Amino acid sequence: MNLKDIGEFGLIEELKKRAAAGAGTIVGIGDDAAVLSSPREGMLTLLTTDMLVEGVHFDLSKANPYQVGWKAIGCSLSDVAAMGGLPSAAVVSLGAPGGAGVEFCMELYRGINDLAKRFGCGVVGGDTVRHGGGVVISVSVMGEVERERVALRSGARPGDELWVTGRLGGSLKGRHLSFVPRIEEARFLVENFPIGAMMDLSDGLGSDLFRMAEASGVGFHVESQRIPISPDAHPEGAPSGADEASALRAALYDGEDFELLFTLHPCRDEKDLAGAFSSRFDCGTSRIGTVVETEQGIALAGPDGERPLEEGGFSHFG
Amino acid sequence: MNLKDIGEFGLIEELKKRAAAGAGTIVGIGDDAAVLSSPREGMLTLLTTDMLVEGVHFDLSKANPYQVGWKAIGCSLSDVAAMGGLPSAAVVSLGAPGGAGVEFCMELYRGINDLAKRFGCGVVGGDTVRHGGGVVISVSVMGEVERERVALRSGARPGDELWVTGRLGGSLKGRHLSFVPRIEEARFLVENFPIGAMMDLSDGLGSDLFRMAEASGVGFHVESQRIPISPDAHPEGAPSGADEASALRAALYDGEDFELLFTLHPCRDEKDLAGAFSSRFDCGTSRIGTVVETEQGIALAGPDGERPLEEGGFSHFG
Repeated sequence: MNLKDIGEFGLIEELKKRAAAGAGTIVGIGDDAAVLSSPREGMLTLLTTDMLVEGVHFDLSKANPYQVGWKAIGCSLSDVAAMGGLPSAAVVSLGAPGGAGVEFCMELYRGINDLAKRFGCGVVGGDTVRHGGGVVISVSVMGEVERERVALRSGARPGDELWVTGRLGGSLKGRHLSFVPRIEEARFLVENFPIGAMMDLSDGLGSDLFRMAEASGVGFHVESQRIPISPDAHPEGAPSGADEASALRAALYDGEDFELLFTLHPCRDEKDLAGAFSSRFDCGTSRIGTVVETEQGIALAGPDGERPLEEGGFSHFG
Repeated sequence: MNLKDIGEFGLIEELKKRAAAGAGTIVGIGDDAAVLSSPREGMLTLLTTDMLVEGVHFDLSKANPYQVGWKAIGCSLSDVAAMGGLPSAAVVSLGAPGGAGVEFCMELYRGINDLAKRFGCGVVGGDTVRHGGGVVISVSVMGEVERERVALRSGARPGDELWVTGRLGGSLKGRHLSFVPRIEEARFLVENFPIGAMMDLSDGLGSDLFRMAEASGVGFHVESQRIPISPDAHPEGAPSGADEASALRAALYDGEDFELLFTLHPCRDEKDLAGAFSSRFDCGTSRIGTVVETEQGIALAGPDGERPLEEGGFSHFG
């Protein structure tokens, strides 16, 4: 059997069953970042890693090395954001052909360092190796979060509201190379609102909703007309009637949005989330649906009625 | 200018100058692992990463996937050992072709998990991505060490004794795929002896001695006849007179020994290091020379007199 047959998520399930246990592991494989016990009272340690591969995550004819570096650490910082945490230190492994230019590498690391500095994250170590098969970058980030504020994929409860930040779809037109991880936005959320589950949208709403549903043991009722669609999601220029269906598909399945998907527990003294959020962050945030019982599955309701959401989006080996 | 022109160590020097600073960074790029402040009284946090690439670090016609996984985490655990520390958690990124077998991946992770378990290190997360250009694995390990016991590359002082564990050379005959990181040995050393500097021998004594010399601002006087040579370092079968020179070259320059190179501060009530060590650990440990002033450089003394040690060993892009 090949990886193609079980897919990325099938592989992760198998690895999860077999993973070596560590004494301080609170949440291991399967969330955006691992959650480890911390010696600091009331705090937890986060650890995450992402690997970016030339030809899969970036195309050097379309992305400059600064952007590639930015994206490489951006993915891991986005994982820390998804837990409600703050990053502290990063290590970077780079595989590159011997013929790669020094200038290329310096630009790549400049992208990494610039984004790291923005969040006070140190770039503290790494490895550089010769690799003929294209450029490969792996960035691991350590961070921390308060025990009472950590946001897991498993925290959604029926009755929660379902929200996303920003606008979705068409990220490959450029946003995937320049996005700013939603660390400040996530901190604002976990510090001020009763967040249930949270994750970052990396594979697309049409895939990531399934991951959150599995982790939380819930279903979702999503209203398609509430999904915030990026201008980039439209095939060409301004949206028109004929474009709407394809823009929605792009918002659901393109992936690499690096926005936050989260649920909000209902609570009596809840502040106005959308208003408070938008007065602080340009990206805005939208309520797109409701958390329901797992038996109800993941439903997408639109002007033409309701249907089960088709699972899709990016999957390695899929 | 290409990476080939400045080499791996030239690149690392450039990256070090530009790295984003983090609030808790005590030692950043350039040691075996980064050293970060820890909230635990008297403790430090360690973070390290290594990337292994098919065709450079392993050859799938000679190594099975279990061995590749074992080596992949072994390199990072060896970095934690080199600091005198204990590992706590690892994250693993794997790039593999879509056509790779599930069995191949499971065996690879079995190797990773088996070695992690041996040291109580959790495998807590990772990333799996499609990569057409051969198998690439990156493992990052977090660990900790007592502030008073951390062993840096910069800790050597003139007058220290210079030691190595185990036997060197010929690792590519198989040891590089099955070595056990010297975590227990390193803990014994830092718990019981006044260790100056320590690092693991990954690029070969003829390269790593230069790294330690630069970091500590010292020179070394190495006695070639004291260098413990592995039986694997001899070209074929038993050693003979003609083999000796080539076996010494192998011990100096083959690399991937993953033994400990360390210095010992002289002290009056010093125990018998070699005896105490050998009664506990099969690999043994040997005094191979002395730390001298930096002006004296790195000298190799043998039966035919003394000469400056030629820098060599494995270097990516070199």
